Amino acid sequence: MCQLLGMNCNAPTDVTFSFRGFAQRGGHTDTHADGWGIAFFEGDSSVDGAGHDKGLRHFVDHLPACESPVADLIRRYPIKSRNVIAHIRKATQGRVALENCHPFVRELWGRYWVFAHNGNLAAYSPRLHGSFRPVGSTDSERAFCWIMQELAKSHADVPSIKELSITLRELAAQIARHGTFNFLLSNGQALWAHASTNLVYVERRHPFAHATLSDEDVSVNFEEHTQPTDRIAVVVTAPLTTNEAWTAFKPGELKVFVDGALADA
Amino acid sequence: MCQLLGMNCNAPTDVTFSFRGFAQRGGHTDTHADGWGIAFFEGDSSVDGAGHDKGLRHFVDHLPACESPVADLIRRYPIKSRNVIAHIRKATQGRVALENCHPFVRELWGRYWVFAHNGNLAAYSPRLHGSFRPVGSTDSERAFCWIMQELAKSHADVPSIKELSITLRELAAQIARHGTFNFLLSNGQALWAHASTNLVYVERRHPFAHATLSDEDVSVNFEEHTQPTDRIAVVVTAPLTTNEAWTAFKPGELKVFVDGALADA
Repeated sequence: MCQLLGMNCNAPTDVTFSFRGFAQRGGHTDTHADGWGIAFFEGDSSVDGAGHDKGLRHFVDHLPACESPVADLIRRYPIKSRNVIAHIRKATQGRVALENCHPFVRELWGRYWVFAHNGNLAAYSPRLHGSFRPVGSTDSERAFCWIMQELAKSHADVPSIKELSITLRELAAQIARHGTFNFLLSNGQALWAHASTNLVYVERRHPFAHATLSDEDVSVNFEEHTQPTDRIAVVVTAPLTTNEAWTAFKPGELKVFVDGALADA
Repeated sequence: MCQLLGMNCNAPTDVTFSFRGFAQRGGHTDTHADGWGIAFFEGDSSVDGAGHDKGLRHFVDHLPACESPVADLIRRYPIKSRNVIAHIRKATQGRVALENCHPFVRELWGRYWVFAHNGNLAAYSPRLHGSFRPVGSTDSERAFCWIMQELAKSHADVPSIKELSITLRELAAQIARHGTFNFLLSNGQALWAHASTNLVYVERRHPFAHATLSDEDVSVNFEEHTQPTDRIAVVVTAPLTTNEAWTAFKPGELKVFVDGALADA
């Protein structure tokens, strides 16, 4: 099974601590050694306003995350972002190749959309007649292209987060009939997360406490690295820390995180 | 003026030497300090066949290339590729922001397309009614979106390199009426280069010789790093080396490089 990691914050935050434990699952504490990837939305909040980051950094590597020089860069270089999606791959469909590494990126309505999937969709060949075509050979990229195609058909221009959540809930349910469909999706405004099986989340906010990584003998005192107003939501396949209250998604649930908190949409 | 660098090879080659001199132009030997970017196509030639690389690594940074930790990674980590496009930005339109850093990437016909531009297109607002919309605010990304839209209209599926070159020549001429339009474009099969003003290229092949960088006191003996069958074409805004025979593009010329050599298309 692949591993997913998503982060949504109200202020640009570096993902160094969470990524550190997560990257260990790529070939070290777990067997997901078929490539990995991470995408960071980045903007200038003084210009773009809260939660409207349009710039994107996208890193993929077919080397195991625990050995990759690119992963090492990300562990050491604190890229600050309000929306991050990372993925460590255990190949079920599609060979080990760069074009099959998640997250995948497409542009729609003048925004980048980032998608990563965990699970396996059996015999899934959606009708792709629109402007989104897979480059690689995974069920995941096919699902993403179909979601983009259907979003483009459903809305003339970029809809509200609430409207997007309604459409995504319908689309996710249709795809989930074909198999396990845990996914993360972001357009730089919000983080959508859908669970078939394994997905948990935590909301970090004031008062911040100590947290200890599950995958490595490291702990951090978030209070030293945060402002009292900071809010950070983290969504992941399995809890990253041993002493925080992680909440499990119910099967079939789609949640949306905005400004570092679970949103009512 | 921005700086462009393109490389097209018949075997995966690292761009370390050329990028080393090129990156110095981002804020050190020249004044292009408004961000930079680089994209590498990467495939598995045993599976994909010659020149059909579908995977893509894409790095952008709004920090000057000579100071960027990401540029430092690329200088030190020899990513091997048959098609590379790099760009150092001097902002003429659009503020300094990640979404305005070249190269830009879009998907068409199940392939990634990478584009970088040098020049300035005055009052250029093409009619974008198709599926390609700019995320940032540059004339360059508008031109790229229009090229993608017109390619999609002109061909039902991915055409031959020769057919693409014919269409691109027509499109480039239309855009070039609006100003300076030096650009590089690749889909992982070939490298297209169009010059309005400044673009030069060199073809490196057996017997390989010593080359000395113009921007840094470094020389390399290519013979030590190559096979006799290797062919490498490099296209750049201004010659990177002081002792190689660089050929200047004529104004309005579009050239295409395939397997490390200028192609007849």
